[in-house]
Amino acid sequence: MKGFAMLTIGQTGWIEKDTPVCGPQDAICKPIALAPCTSDIHTVWAGAIGDRHNMILGHEAVGEVVEVGNLVKDFKVGDKVLVSAITPDWNSLEAQGGYSMHSGGMLSGWKFSNFKDGVFAQYFHVNDADGNLALLPEGMDLGAACMISDMVPTGFHGVELADIQFGDNVAVIGIGPVGLMAVAAAAIRGAAKIYAVGSRQNCINLALEYGATDIINYREGDIVDQIMDKTHGKGVDKIVIAGGNNDTFDQAIKILKPGGKIGNVNYLGEGDYVKIPRIQWGCGMGHKQIIGGLMPGGRLRSEKLANLVLANRIHPEKLITHTFKGLESVEEALMLMKDKPRDLIKPLVLID
Amino acid sequence: MKGFAMLTIGQTGWIEKDTPVCGPQDAICKPIALAPCTSDIHTVWAGAIGDRHNMILGHEAVGEVVEVGNLVKDFKVGDKVLVSAITPDWNSLEAQGGYSMHSGGMLSGWKFSNFKDGVFAQYFHVNDADGNLALLPEGMDLGAACMISDMVPTGFHGVELADIQFGDNVAVIGIGPVGLMAVAAAAIRGAAKIYAVGSRQNCINLALEYGATDIINYREGDIVDQIMDKTHGKGVDKIVIAGGNNDTFDQAIKILKPGGKIGNVNYLGEGDYVKIPRIQWGCGMGHKQIIGGLMPGGRLRSEKLANLVLANRIHPEKLITHTFKGLESVEEALMLMKDKPRDLIKPLVLID
Amino acid sequence: MKGFAMLTIGQTGWIEKDTPVCGPQDAICKPIALAPCTSDIHTVWAGAIGDRHNMILGHEAVGEVVEVGNLVKDFKVGDKVLVSAITPDWNSLEAQGGYSMHSGGMLSGWKFSNFKDGVFAQYFHVNDADGNLALLPEGMDLGAACMISDMVPTGFHGVELADIQFGDNVAVIGIGPVGLMAVAAAAIRGAAKIYAVGSRQNCINLALEYGATDIINYREGDIVDQIMDKTHGKGVDKIVIAGGNNDTFDQAIKILKPGGKIGNVNYLGEGDYVKIPRIQWGCGMGHKQIIGGLMPGGRLRSEKLANLVLANRIHPEKLITHTFKGLESVEEALMLMKDKPRDLIKPLVLID
Amino acid sequence: MKGFAMLTIGQTGWIEKDTPVCGPQDAICKPIALAPCTSDIHTVWAGAIGDRHNMILGHEAVGEVVEVGNLVKDFKVGDKVLVSAITPDWNSLEAQGGYSMHSGGMLSGWKFSNFKDGVFAQYFHVNDADGNLALLPEGMDLGAACMISDMVPTGFHGVELADIQFGDNVAVIGIGPVGLMAVAAAAIRGAAKIYAVGSRQNCINLALEYGATDIINYREGDIVDQIMDKTHGKGVDKIVIAGGNNDTFDQAIKILKPGGKIGNVNYLGEGDYVKIPRIQWGCGMGHKQIIGGLMPGGRLRSEKLANLVLANRIHPEKLITHTFKGLESVEEALMLMKDKPRDLIKPLVLID
Repeated sequence: MKGFAMLTIGQTGWIEKDTPVCGPQDAICKPIALAPCTSDIHTVWAGAIGDRHNMILGHEAVGEVVEVGNLVKDFKVGDKVLVSAITPDWNSLEAQGGYSMHSGGMLSGWKFSNFKDGVFAQYFHVNDADGNLALLPEGMDLGAACMISDMVPTGFHGVELADIQFGDNVAVIGIGPVGLMAVAAAAIRGAAKIYAVGSRQNCINLALEYGATDIINYREGDIVDQIMDKTHGKGVDKIVIAGGNNDTFDQAIKILKPGGKIGNVNYLGEGDYVKIPRIQWGCGMGHKQIIGGLMPGGRLRSEKLANLVLANRIHPEKLITHTFKGLESVEEALMLMKDKPRDLIKPLVLID
Repeated sequence: MKGFAMLTIGQTGWIEKDTPVCGPQDAICKPIALAPCTSDIHTVWAGAIGDRHNMILGHEAVGEVVEVGNLVKDFKVGDKVLVSAITPDWNSLEAQGGYSMHSGGMLSGWKFSNFKDGVFAQYFHVNDADGNLALLPEGMDLGAACMISDMVPTGFHGVELADIQFGDNVAVIGIGPVGLMAVAAAAIRGAAKIYAVGSRQNCINLALEYGATDIINYREGDIVDQIMDKTHGKGVDKIVIAGGNNDTFDQAIKILKPGGKIGNVNYLGEGDYVKIPRIQWGCGMGHKQIIGGLMPGGRLRSEKLANLVLANRIHPEKLITHTFKGLESVEEALMLMKDKPRDLIKPLVLID
Repeated sequence: MKGFAMLTIGQTGWIEKDTPVCGPQDAICKPIALAPCTSDIHTVWAGAIGDRHNMILGHEAVGEVVEVGNLVKDFKVGDKVLVSAITPDWNSLEAQGGYSMHSGGMLSGWKFSNFKDGVFAQYFHVNDADGNLALLPEGMDLGAACMISDMVPTGFHGVELADIQFGDNVAVIGIGPVGLMAVAAAAIRGAAKIYAVGSRQNCINLALEYGATDIINYREGDIVDQIMDKTHGKGVDKIVIAGGNNDTFDQAIKILKPGGKIGNVNYLGEGDYVKIPRIQWGCGMGHKQIIGGLMPGGRLRSEKLANLVLANRIHPEKLITHTFKGLESVEEALMLMKDKPRDLIKPLVLID
Repeated sequence: MKGFAMLTIGQTGWIEKDTPVCGPQDAICKPIALAPCTSDIHTVWAGAIGDRHNMILGHEAVGEVVEVGNLVKDFKVGDKVLVSAITPDWNSLEAQGGYSMHSGGMLSGWKFSNFKDGVFAQYFHVNDADGNLALLPEGMDLGAACMISDMVPTGFHGVELADIQFGDNVAVIGIGPVGLMAVAAAAIRGAAKIYAVGSRQNCINLALEYGATDIINYREGDIVDQIMDKTHGKGVDKIVIAGGNNDTFDQAIKILKPGGKIGNVNYLGEGDYVKIPRIQWGCGMGHKQIIGGLMPGGRLRSEKLANLVLANRIHPEKLITHTFKGLESVEEALMLMKDKPRDLIKPLVLID
């Protein structure tokens, strides 16, 4: 079969591979819709997860089942399915302890284009089909459906980690596609003010549509100063970090109230240390909680997020600014993601 | 001063009383807006809290401060304020333990028209002004503001007790004003499907506007059957009870999934026992959690809920179906609440 | 193979069956140690789970692996293992949602001697060996090890459900083997006073040794009166119910403070309704939380509880008052459990 | 009156001041027992909280009430009382939000020898007596009682922040008096293994007595290596930091499992940044939660901790290695704390 792969760090290309083998609990799918992710860019061009050779890329997909193992109970050939970017081993100790995304080791619930070939191919392999696939609800927009692989659950997890409560004032730092979903999640989690930190106009527009109340443009001044001004020196109750870098935590601590919480869902790709400013962190005693985590994947999560789409609570299809047709155009879509033109939020590739 | 009072069980009337005395931490307010509550009806005509004599009624108000004690720091004469229906003693052991509404004893955070005169008077007394008042935000609709006394926090607390998570399917049983606020809260807490149980057309309309996805009319069949049908026999993830009676819990347990939670905010006025059906409760082992609780009151809560109104997340002013003018019309408003004409959701009385 | 079975409601006997078949993820074990449980008594003589025919009894065991499926990674033939009474399907929606004991339906994580043959046989089948077995730590007492199947996790879950915090005063109602483990759990969860409700002298002695501070003997007066006296009318912060019947909840609500929590782990075998006294439940508003749940099973849980034994934090082997030898003596041990002589807490059967 | 004060950074001495004035909610106490704290050392010689002039030191005390304000309900002249080091303003927004120790601003619940004179004087002032004092239980050891001011609640809070669950393997870094109380707290919170990191023999002995299972001596090698060895490369579930410095967090992250939690109660006195190692923190996605917080103070907390002492769950009096008599010996006791001879854990001063 054909797949679009990372050949080595810094290089991509089309390769031929054997169709993946289906284990007794697994499924083989062909893609219906695909989306490239910033992580793919980091994987290839920043070598974020180390060197990989001829590894097929991609972890965001809607698929159609073409084969199932003999232990699979709930899916059959022909089913159209939501595919979670994170596909845990559900009986692992980590999953039993509530951290399925770390099944088998830290971050190891992430398998596609990390430990095995990804979804940018004619066929891809899904471990534990019953645990990690979900039926595509009839009539669901394919763009929305494809965003349930990663963009929606990642953005939503930021809000869960930040533990937003009714009436909290919240900052969402970074309003790329994940940050935008965090804005949407904060709005339907009970936030009052949402200070969305970003600068690109199309992202700003969508942030406002998704529920942001204030835009903080870092090109117009220090974001700490801007947010402290807007909050009359009090800072915010909770923060979701969905962009920036190690230094973003320094800013975040400075605008966070005692008792506040930071939920990070931004992959930190470089630098040795995240630095927490001692004094503003209350000399270690300010109850400013810091946590970051990979999204929870799997079937239940996909079903619950799909329910939110079906109930019209969220509209992730609005992230899609560019749509392509045919498997071969994943290359162009990925390059678009790499180049980040100013009108881009998220590209989608429809197959057939 | 003049006040509208419960004279004894079953009788109301206007009485004359001395203006309340202001302690060092307290405030005396005059009402700007008032609303009668179903609790007032229960208090007078069902004798729900026992007999009371010449006790001024009412616990929902927006006020203006006319006097403050010498220890009050954050409020001054002339301030317009949100007044919480529940005004805890914040240094009590119960408040320190997280249950301020039970400060001094179960339910004893509820003081207005329970342990002391209520707000349907020319003047009313607020204990611990710094802890229990909040500034009325400029430009806030007085109907919305008055709903922050009780309707909003009570409905929202039901959702907190039910612990709604992203994508949960939820039933809200009862869609009077509290249930309607619970519907609105569930929608901005991340519920997917919201099954709103009620029968009155104006309430149904507002439930749909507030975010209900399905209306379950108990006049059209057993609500257990209807909800189990709609959920394909699976039941719901979470339930808010905002109406009904002791038997409502029997129904609720039957439509609740294992691991589900019931949050009750309905005052149960009669009967000896709430009955939990043993088998559907998993013979005591189904992890179907049952909790009910009086709303948390106080300043922070009022401020946070006001922030939600200011950020356009909720629109409690839509509860107001009837508006009256002048303190003397609280009597008519209360009688309206007692008679419950079909076009009533909630009356409001504007003073001056 | 030979097994000791429920023949039908009210009848037990030895039967011959085929050795169970090992699926690709499963293990077949032979027993090293076994213990009968009150649930076995309820199953046979009260018909608690409905009629069953020729179903081998038993769900408490330490075993030795004699066969593993080809997908099993962490266990091999000859391994000695802790066997959890509850063996969930870990990829089920319920397990993904945090309620693995209800995988596949309420209480359906309980499979031994419920949906399939139990452990009172020459061989028994364990689904998902990697997820549901744990290695028997070297040198661990077999009595302690066997109690990790059910008595320890059930008693400990009661304490988790009651959410005991540092310095809480706690009542543990029922001090059979599960209640005794709840006493031990409460003591190492941070309880201050532990009021243990029971009457049998050997249980009382062990309760005191496990950390109870006060014994409440229901033969010496109403337990509500006794506990309210001892707490100067204030009641307790948290309650674990590990015995009694539907009416026990009535008593529990009466001795529980507002904001308190009841964790039930007692299987309620008869009666239509658990009755919650309305007034003492704060008319639905007292924040007295009621929850009951089947123990969480599986490998991680067994490992964590075994760690507590190894660290000398708990001594479940002290529950064992009677020890038998040989598979055939499970019958005698079960009858002992049925007859409950006054010197019995828990019997153990060692095989070989 | 006479008090022992910080004269300026680096200087201490006895001064004369007016007896403090009692507000309507307050109490004036005379000390019965006092203890100096490492914080006093930091305050004076490291200038940790900035310069202060002629500020009486000390925040650990048992006292006797000599005057109460007219609004005080539960305490009277002659009552012997536990005095919390942290005395919040309970009606503040922060306390209403669950963070009473930050009432009025980050860390501002800490008032003694910070914003006002401390307890090393003939008389000291306690704000909100009903909220912040607790009766000294009859017969309680004065050493244990004095440790309830700060050492016990601070150590216990570390364990609460680390959120220890049954069977967790835990590291407690630092076994001075606070760390030792954290060891004791971990043991009665359900920890299995407790790796206590320290080097002083008397502290090691008490750590073992309080429940540590393994001692990690940093003088015998890198603590990361030692703990990873002992845990077979897996690391620990939870960590309490009660000593060290900014760099301790680097070590802690490295020995913490994904999904683990760090609870810090060590005051970080210098350095610009706490540094979190990016890769071992899972590139921001490892769910390794970091939180640090000032102890919760107040009456309920003191009462609950006193209950633990009364129930023989903890023995904080064992921290006391040196006992002095008379107010004037607080100077010697403080200097002992400054010099830290190897046989010191904690000094106590008994007055009269």
